[in-house]
Amino acid sequence: MGKRIVIALGGNALGKNLPEQMAAVKHTAKAIVDLIQEGHEVVIVHGNGPQVGMINVAMTSLSREDPSHPIAPMSVCTAMSEGYIGYDLQNSIREELLDREMERSVSTILTQVEVDPQDPAFQHPTKPIGSFMTQEEAEALRLQGHAVMEDAGRGWRRCVASPLPKSIIEIETIRALLAAGQVVVACGGGGIPVIQEGHHLRGAGAVIDKDFAAELLAEELNADSLVILTAVEKVAVNFGKPDQRWLDHLTPEEAQRYIGEDQFAPGSMLPKVQAAVKFAESKSGRTALITLLEKAKDGIAGRTGTAVSL
Amino acid sequence: MGKRIVIALGGNALGKNLPEQMAAVKHTAKAIVDLIQEGHEVVIVHGNGPQVGMINVAMTSLSREDPSHPIAPMSVCTAMSEGYIGYDLQNSIREELLDREMERSVSTILTQVEVDPQDPAFQHPTKPIGSFMTQEEAEALRLQGHAVMEDAGRGWRRCVASPLPKSIIEIETIRALLAAGQVVVACGGGGIPVIQEGHHLRGAGAVIDKDFAAELLAEELNADSLVILTAVEKVAVNFGKPDQRWLDHLTPEEAQRYIGEDQFAPGSMLPKVQAAVKFAESKSGRTALITLLEKAKDGIAGRTGTAVSL
Repeated sequence: MGKRIVIALGGNALGKNLPEQMAAVKHTAKAIVDLIQEGHEVVIVHGNGPQVGMINVAMTSLSREDPSHPIAPMSVCTAMSEGYIGYDLQNSIREELLDREMERSVSTILTQVEVDPQDPAFQHPTKPIGSFMTQEEAEALRLQGHAVMEDAGRGWRRCVASPLPKSIIEIETIRALLAAGQVVVACGGGGIPVIQEGHHLRGAGAVIDKDFAAELLAEELNADSLVILTAVEKVAVNFGKPDQRWLDHLTPEEAQRYIGEDQFAPGSMLPKVQAAVKFAESKSGRTALITLLEKAKDGIAGRTGTAVSL
Repeated sequence: MGKRIVIALGGNALGKNLPEQMAAVKHTAKAIVDLIQEGHEVVIVHGNGPQVGMINVAMTSLSREDPSHPIAPMSVCTAMSEGYIGYDLQNSIREELLDREMERSVSTILTQVEVDPQDPAFQHPTKPIGSFMTQEEAEALRLQGHAVMEDAGRGWRRCVASPLPKSIIEIETIRALLAAGQVVVACGGGGIPVIQEGHHLRGAGAVIDKDFAAELLAEELNADSLVILTAVEKVAVNFGKPDQRWLDHLTPEEAQRYIGEDQFAPGSMLPKVQAAVKFAESKSGRTALITLLEKAKDGIAGRTGTAVSL
């Protein structure tokens, strides 16, 4: 009775630096292995916000100290973050499996995700990344073709677009490993964003939302469930108000109505609900679940979380 | 009549910065796809000397600017380098395959390689990495438990051990992808060095020679050939002397004799010949080849390079 489950794991849940990450992944691994132990097939997509920011800052420092190194594109920083996070994440899952005497291979697939160069997101880069700069430094970057923005009075930062994922380049690799019974970490950080130019894949100055990447992956793998793990046990309407109400279930129609009422914060709960709706609508029988990491097992068993299905 | 081939590709052949790498991998991909087009199964192991050095310098700058980030261990820098290099390398191979109308999936597996904490190499760290420091900075690092060395009068540098590879943690993943007909990039930079502590894998302050990692991988995959690509077409004895002689073939015994005569430079040709000998001795019928990237196809066909076999 095992399900095929794609888990979307927040980058913030992985810690802001290496010691934090090493501690965080242990906790994360227990929740993931709980699902595997129940007999489910699991694929993990993780975010990379703080991590790709850290790498971007490091690579920018390098470029400042040694100009023979151009500023690393976001695509390259994301590729590096897949190594940085995947290493700790796959290891902690492997260790937790062995501790429970479960023999399963765990692997991380360096994953590229195609985006559309016509995606309107490219006209409006909205995601600030990396360290703060002076206006002069920002202007110099802009002249090099990078987008920059003033970030809430705190200084200038580079910013990038967040386009929707169109296709997963390494999908056959992920399928082959699932077929071989492996636990797979893929589409880390939403995937390395690339644009098809004939046979060439060009890195895009963008970051892909990991919830949307996980949703696409779940569709492509014909998963039964998409589990979006976040900082709350359930989705709420009227969040933080006296009439706040936690939701056990949402149909795509209800969700769309709430989205129309601006019930969900952009860049936070909104993309999660949107990804959940897209998955639930993609095929009858598919369920998306939004809940806490610690409640993933209970949520899949139908005991908590907010389920989105037709 | 296709062979199973493990290719060891030098990190220096990948360029010292991003633009160089992007140009270098195109050239590299042609030589690799030539072998695939001949019907061979190919697994690629790449070095990461300049790249892991660059990442180490970047992460050290970050740590200096923001002490909330401890200096990244070599294991973490190697994990990042597998993403950095694998991304460009798998892409260029994919593009070259498509240009020749060959449909094959290409993937990069984040790979950990076990080393022995009792390996004598840990008593004598020999590989300098990263940027130069003052003696005071070096002393501060030493007090944090890092090995440092004075590098040829140019200043102080961190240095790490280069132990032998013992086992490849993700071997089943690589086998599964080969069985699915994929082209696989694995054990990048010799693999992320780890030490088994019960079920836990602890990152080691080391770098593994990519030729030895490729050799172990070739044995584990029961490969027919190990192809070590380098800057010369053939191995020579009396290299650079009037009686220099290029070698077409070497038996393990002959190679051992030349090694005893100090014919091969440590850290350069020596580990390549040692890895070749180990592979040739591991099973009858196995051949190691040392040659130029551009001569890989001719070498596999027996037309050039130095072959090492029983």
